[in-house]
Amino acid sequence: MNSSTDGKSFPIPAGFSFSAVTAGIKASGSPDLALAVADSGASAAAMFTRNRVVAAPLVVGRSSLRSSRGKIRAVVVNSGNANCATGEPGLKAAQDVCRQTAKILGVRAREVFPSSTGIIGVPLPVEKIINELPALIQAREESEAAATRFARAIMTTDTRMKTAGAQFETRHGRVTLFGVAKGSGMIHPQLATILVYLFTDVSASAPDLRRLLRGVCDTTFNCMSVDGDTSTNDTVLLLASGKSGVKLAASGVRAAFGKVLAEVCQSLAKQVVADGEGVQHLIHLTVEQARSRDEALRVAKAIAHSALVKTAWAGADPNWGRILAAVGRSGVAVDPARVSIAIAEQTVCRKGQAAAFEESRAHADLSQPECEVRVSLGRGRASVRFLTTDLTAEYVRINADYST
Amino acid sequence: MNSSTDGKSFPIPAGFSFSAVTAGIKASGSPDLALAVADSGASAAAMFTRNRVVAAPLVVGRSSLRSSRGKIRAVVVNSGNANCATGEPGLKAAQDVCRQTAKILGVRAREVFPSSTGIIGVPLPVEKIINELPALIQAREESEAAATRFARAIMTTDTRMKTAGAQFETRHGRVTLFGVAKGSGMIHPQLATILVYLFTDVSASAPDLRRLLRGVCDTTFNCMSVDGDTSTNDTVLLLASGKSGVKLAASGVRAAFGKVLAEVCQSLAKQVVADGEGVQHLIHLTVEQARSRDEALRVAKAIAHSALVKTAWAGADPNWGRILAAVGRSGVAVDPARVSIAIAEQTVCRKGQAAAFEESRAHADLSQPECEVRVSLGRGRASVRFLTTDLTAEYVRINADYST
Repeated sequence: MNSSTDGKSFPIPAGFSFSAVTAGIKASGSPDLALAVADSGASAAAMFTRNRVVAAPLVVGRSSLRSSRGKIRAVVVNSGNANCATGEPGLKAAQDVCRQTAKILGVRAREVFPSSTGIIGVPLPVEKIINELPALIQAREESEAAATRFARAIMTTDTRMKTAGAQFETRHGRVTLFGVAKGSGMIHPQLATILVYLFTDVSASAPDLRRLLRGVCDTTFNCMSVDGDTSTNDTVLLLASGKSGVKLAASGVRAAFGKVLAEVCQSLAKQVVADGEGVQHLIHLTVEQARSRDEALRVAKAIAHSALVKTAWAGADPNWGRILAAVGRSGVAVDPARVSIAIAEQTVCRKGQAAAFEESRAHADLSQPECEVRVSLGRGRASVRFLTTDLTAEYVRINADYST
Repeated sequence: MNSSTDGKSFPIPAGFSFSAVTAGIKASGSPDLALAVADSGASAAAMFTRNRVVAAPLVVGRSSLRSSRGKIRAVVVNSGNANCATGEPGLKAAQDVCRQTAKILGVRAREVFPSSTGIIGVPLPVEKIINELPALIQAREESEAAATRFARAIMTTDTRMKTAGAQFETRHGRVTLFGVAKGSGMIHPQLATILVYLFTDVSASAPDLRRLLRGVCDTTFNCMSVDGDTSTNDTVLLLASGKSGVKLAASGVRAAFGKVLAEVCQSLAKQVVADGEGVQHLIHLTVEQARSRDEALRVAKAIAHSALVKTAWAGADPNWGRILAAVGRSGVAVDPARVSIAIAEQTVCRKGQAAAFEESRAHADLSQPECEVRVSLGRGRASVRFLTTDLTAEYVRINADYST
């Protein structure tokens, strides 16, 4: 699994500074409080979890984005505690963190965006965070080293830091995009969440960013699954400082920016899935010949969420009967006699029946760190690419390992 | 897990004979071909898988029930091969088995109901079956010993035989019900299926049986889940010989029969779940205070299919945050601030927040072979009882263990 970017170097967009400190929320003593500041402000767009159970910082952040009309000055993230299922005190804690950060920075509370990741149902140790805010704000730097500290401080049981970046030239100047993510399934007992922060110096309005971000999320973070569980804290935040002087609305910029945004998000999505709990094999699943993208996505999710399919992949077992059975219970009105399935280069099921194929080769293909699986429904022209994983005994060990 | 009925004795209803032989479909050499005959015929009702991928014997059986208007003389079941994803030759194979059985018995082909369970996508070795039919038919007996041989011959990777029975007296006479099941999740690589056969000597029309069976299935076999995968061969068949002389339509009989039918089905459902692959803990999940039964069922399924919830149960971890997160993504518009969760006798989450509870006691409760988990949605008065299991490393080992 070679998709970690540890050690890779990415340029940081102009207009952002970063820092991280240890506030003592994590028992490990690792840094657990991170800050990103756009000193001159940034346009912002965010996507949140669709879970009905929503953590306090998401409630506060969503409301702030609305009242500030998509203007953000700072992002404060703590790891080690999700501030979820914590009731009114949890909401107040998230607001206090924003208020105190805003006070020191001399900005408005609604311009500070809060995030939390970690254990659910435990009160946020808000004093620990507030005590460290002056040092956190003091320490910020406009450097890649500082951005790396930010990326490390938001990790929970991630085994690898996840960053990605891109630059492109326009005739108006150079645009830089830098992204950070955390997540590896719903991870450790009671630890949740994927968090993604994207920083760019392009100049764009919040509604324009939002349109772009939604489209890109649909094909990246919404097309991946480790264990089928949706976290209560999932957040993707895109901040644009405008410091490049290049306008998103200028000719050719939107397309170029959309392309690198998709690439950076896909890289981060792949890093998250590859760092999934107990993951041995990353599966690039394509569902094609569907009547609509939604239909293709339903089938992809039924396959990616099947314990039987995922355990077969753990054993590199080219068991297409399990994939066909998952297609059949997806809720899509497929005709099994039109369904074909390929593993890497070989068709293993043709029109609902066994195809002649080399089992040992299919086993070898599925034994690779990454493998393509293609399911053709024979219904239409829509398709979806979906990133998923096997389900290993190690996943169970990680998630069943209980100690009070 | 003490719900096996191995060794228990059940009376056999009048009008049925049973047998089993080894046809050589299973590599193990264990009996793999089973027969039940109602010499004077029986009224029949059946429920089938809702998977769009449907095995050949289900297509044939469904059509036969329609054309015979619910009259069945014999049931032929093979284990070791599912006759699924086998195309036209698979349909012809199932028809040939029925035709040949009918010929020897001197009945019509549409009066013979076929079933198969085992590997998907491999042609049914129909000659092996047809060669053994004379011996199979010859060997039949109206005895509990013969019914037990039937129950053993339909097992695939089940570790225990599954039978249940009941009798009740009416003023018109005594009614007997005997049931047989196989299944333990979608089991071994490429082995699928739960199969249930219910035999009674009550006198009833096929439509009456069908109404009763559908209601009972909804609260038993449709309220259980080992791994969330729906097999391509699932079948529940109820046969009534009428030999007791007691009419279902007679006063008081329908209610009494409905009650024992539900008890026998619930016992078989519990035996199947308890024999689920790698299962250590059986969870009796209640979802209550829903607006409708459908809504309660959606929430129960979201919980029962969550890999994170099931792995927590494997570790006897009273991690209610994962249960709450599963409720939140169920698609039901729950208000998390109204959701409460109890493990055994203790409330662990009250109105969306942590309740004060003894963790060590909750851990001890979840360490038992069976444990109650109760989720209250605070939305209405409907509820559902759902039977499910933990997800263990052993499950993964069983399903990932691949050898070509």
